[in-house]
Amino acid sequence: MADVLRRFTSGGPGRALLRRLGVQVPVALPRHEPGRPEFTGPVLLGGTGSGRLGPVLAGILQRAGVPVLRTGDPGDGSGAAALVFDATGLAGSAGLAQLYEFAHPLVRQLPLGGRVVIVGDVPGAAGSAAAAVAAQALEGFTRSLGKELGRGSTCQLLRAAPGATETLEAPLRFLLSRRSAYVSGQVVRVGPPVGAFPPPAGAPQAGRVVAVTGAARGIGAEVAGLLARDGAHLICLDLPSRREELERTAARIGGTALAVDVTGADAPEVIAAHLRERHAGVDVFVHNAGVTRDRTLARMSRAEWDTVLDVNLGAVERITAALLADGPGGPVLRDGGALVCTSSIGGIAGNRGQTNYGAAKAGLIGLVRALAPASAGRGVRVNAVAPGFIETDMTARMPLLVREAGRRMNSLGQAGLPVDVAEAVRWLADPANAGVTGQVLRVCGQSLIGA
Amino acid sequence: MADVLRRFTSGGPGRALLRRLGVQVPVALPRHEPGRPEFTGPVLLGGTGSGRLGPVLAGILQRAGVPVLRTGDPGDGSGAAALVFDATGLAGSAGLAQLYEFAHPLVRQLPLGGRVVIVGDVPGAAGSAAAAVAAQALEGFTRSLGKELGRGSTCQLLRAAPGATETLEAPLRFLLSRRSAYVSGQVVRVGPPVGAFPPPAGAPQAGRVVAVTGAARGIGAEVAGLLARDGAHLICLDLPSRREELERTAARIGGTALAVDVTGADAPEVIAAHLRERHAGVDVFVHNAGVTRDRTLARMSRAEWDTVLDVNLGAVERITAALLADGPGGPVLRDGGALVCTSSIGGIAGNRGQTNYGAAKAGLIGLVRALAPASAGRGVRVNAVAPGFIETDMTARMPLLVREAGRRMNSLGQAGLPVDVAEAVRWLADPANAGVTGQVLRVCGQSLIGA
Repeated sequence: MADVLRRFTSGGPGRALLRRLGVQVPVALPRHEPGRPEFTGPVLLGGTGSGRLGPVLAGILQRAGVPVLRTGDPGDGSGAAALVFDATGLAGSAGLAQLYEFAHPLVRQLPLGGRVVIVGDVPGAAGSAAAAVAAQALEGFTRSLGKELGRGSTCQLLRAAPGATETLEAPLRFLLSRRSAYVSGQVVRVGPPVGAFPPPAGAPQAGRVVAVTGAARGIGAEVAGLLARDGAHLICLDLPSRREELERTAARIGGTALAVDVTGADAPEVIAAHLRERHAGVDVFVHNAGVTRDRTLARMSRAEWDTVLDVNLGAVERITAALLADGPGGPVLRDGGALVCTSSIGGIAGNRGQTNYGAAKAGLIGLVRALAPASAGRGVRVNAVAPGFIETDMTARMPLLVREAGRRMNSLGQAGLPVDVAEAVRWLADPANAGVTGQVLRVCGQSLIGA
Repeated sequence: MADVLRRFTSGGPGRALLRRLGVQVPVALPRHEPGRPEFTGPVLLGGTGSGRLGPVLAGILQRAGVPVLRTGDPGDGSGAAALVFDATGLAGSAGLAQLYEFAHPLVRQLPLGGRVVIVGDVPGAAGSAAAAVAAQALEGFTRSLGKELGRGSTCQLLRAAPGATETLEAPLRFLLSRRSAYVSGQVVRVGPPVGAFPPPAGAPQAGRVVAVTGAARGIGAEVAGLLARDGAHLICLDLPSRREELERTAARIGGTALAVDVTGADAPEVIAAHLRERHAGVDVFVHNAGVTRDRTLARMSRAEWDTVLDVNLGAVERITAALLADGPGGPVLRDGGALVCTSSIGGIAGNRGQTNYGAAKAGLIGLVRALAPASAGRGVRVNAVAPGFIETDMTARMPLLVREAGRRMNSLGQAGLPVDVAEAVRWLADPANAGVTGQVLRVCGQSLIGA
């Protein structure tokens, strides 16, 4: 069966079809590595005549130490590894032609792993219907361009809400860096800072306590590793049946292990008490544990429904409630902290055979959206990642054909790696990223699949 | 080339792959025809113990003359052509198991062209975070179930905002009827009535004036035909170069023709004056005219950019402004009227080679969202349809492989017909559908492609 698909996707007609659908020939994505520069090269900065953020963006890039080019400079953009366009302040759709004029001659010159970031207004906060139209048009442009860039290049839209200026720094740097290698075609809303801002200088998570569920292996272990490298003390949670693997993972990153089944009736209490008594609280809690029990609804057992709903959603809700409940010295999740949930494309678009998983992962989106405004007063941000096709134990168990199609049906033409999701979690957990809350970031290489 | 794809998609592995992706073996969709009953059969009505809309839904179904079954009735749901589940009032995710228990034994029994409609709360208006979670979870369930029903069956989520009770009638009837044959996996928000409600009894558009652009052929001609059948006087607009065809179309439905290029500098004035002077205004204006000039951004000419932006977006904005501008006796678009724009999946998800089209069609979404709240005070509703792959002149010009893939990559396994889009426009234009405004309805058979 796999041969048939491989022949099809490697033959001329199959390739032509996939290319027209926006599926690209895969290239090795440049990813972040310690010691490697944050950016792949100079950034060409452009904008409309009326943009309000040009100086802010230039300042961010200068502080990041990345060379900034301008259209009209000698060489006219050649050598730029990334394009940033300030599309704020567009009064109407006629102004969109400036974006065409900027990007049209430049997109072809982008190197492997190039970056395009368009910065626009939030349509609902634009000053007029005409401005809202232009701001929304940027989304269709961004998603279309993401589908045609190829060669590991990505394209995103940053929506700057009123009051979002310094808070643009963390999103812009992430999206321009190699850390967002598998994020493309996304729309990120940046607001004014939630909580104390800017955070203290130094390593992002220095002196902070971070807990991650499902941390023995896979994405959870990658998340724990990245946040430990950022200076956090890690508490790694996973099932008692994985205790040995969990302890190895925790030891490797200088963290501690807590073997607990998140669905256990006493798990919320056990986890909250552990964090409070041993660590005087937690700054970041990453809900990563998850399971699938795929079956069409007609054939799905009640147990398959219940397990998936409970592990992926119910346990997250109960543990979150325990972390947010008031207690001696305040809630276990400290002021200025962050919650990160792990949703899924299945929670956005649904998936055949996953009424249980789709419901649970959509429920997490509801949780993020409900808790974010309620938690902002304490400086707590609540976000989710929504992975697409990531090479994990879970996807390794898929039938070969589905797996191969899943890998290819996105703008980068390949599956993501656990580290790609971990980088997104790291970014959402970073106190410097204070303008992003209540959001769901897809980490999917701009999967074709959506709602 | 087509043979290769056809062999692939009709062979075992290809079929297995497509089925796993939620692509179904196509069946002939039962569509509405004059004289045919509105519904295909009895509706089985269920709900959570805490649902607040059960009696409202039962009343709607009784008024519609459709037999209503209940779980526990003799026969236990056998013979039901549609399932309606009142999921409002869910206090938390544990209650979702009631939806599983209801639907699990029933989905297998649905006949060809079966219908599932889940009615839930608006997450943002739910009483607690836990209720918002459950309300959002319904979306993942709905979209997943839509992908596995097969045999021309569809599944939707109706979100009932506070104050939406009588206004549920038009959406529920549409989604249960054959008129929504190519609508699946959609989430429709229903609010309290905009404008005078209920509208006068009789044919939906009796005594009303409706204008449709791009009406000479294709989707526009279908829209004009349906609305004329509903009692409206139709003003059919299209290019002067299509005058003959336009006049034939208009004559066939007892309407009148107005040959005008919507991008002309004087078009807004000409159209507004015509509607005001000949018809004392217009009740429904359908922006349907559109063009494509597909090319990757790197190769796209400025003319290709400008043409697509101007026809699909700029002209719509200018004409809309003329219809809404105050004048003698008020705006040309009368109180209680409706605007319907034609967006596209490309405006939601983007499309390779369509930075121009994607931007323009996304811009229309911005227009709808900005104008809807601003127009509600006059009882004017503003919505859009977003067609997926529809058999039209435009798609007939696609390369064969892309066309074939476009046809198959959705939950109904086939392309839609112009009448499917027209039925959605008819529904959005219906004064009885007073609770739906500011929305974009995809007519795409639940295309895999999204954002």
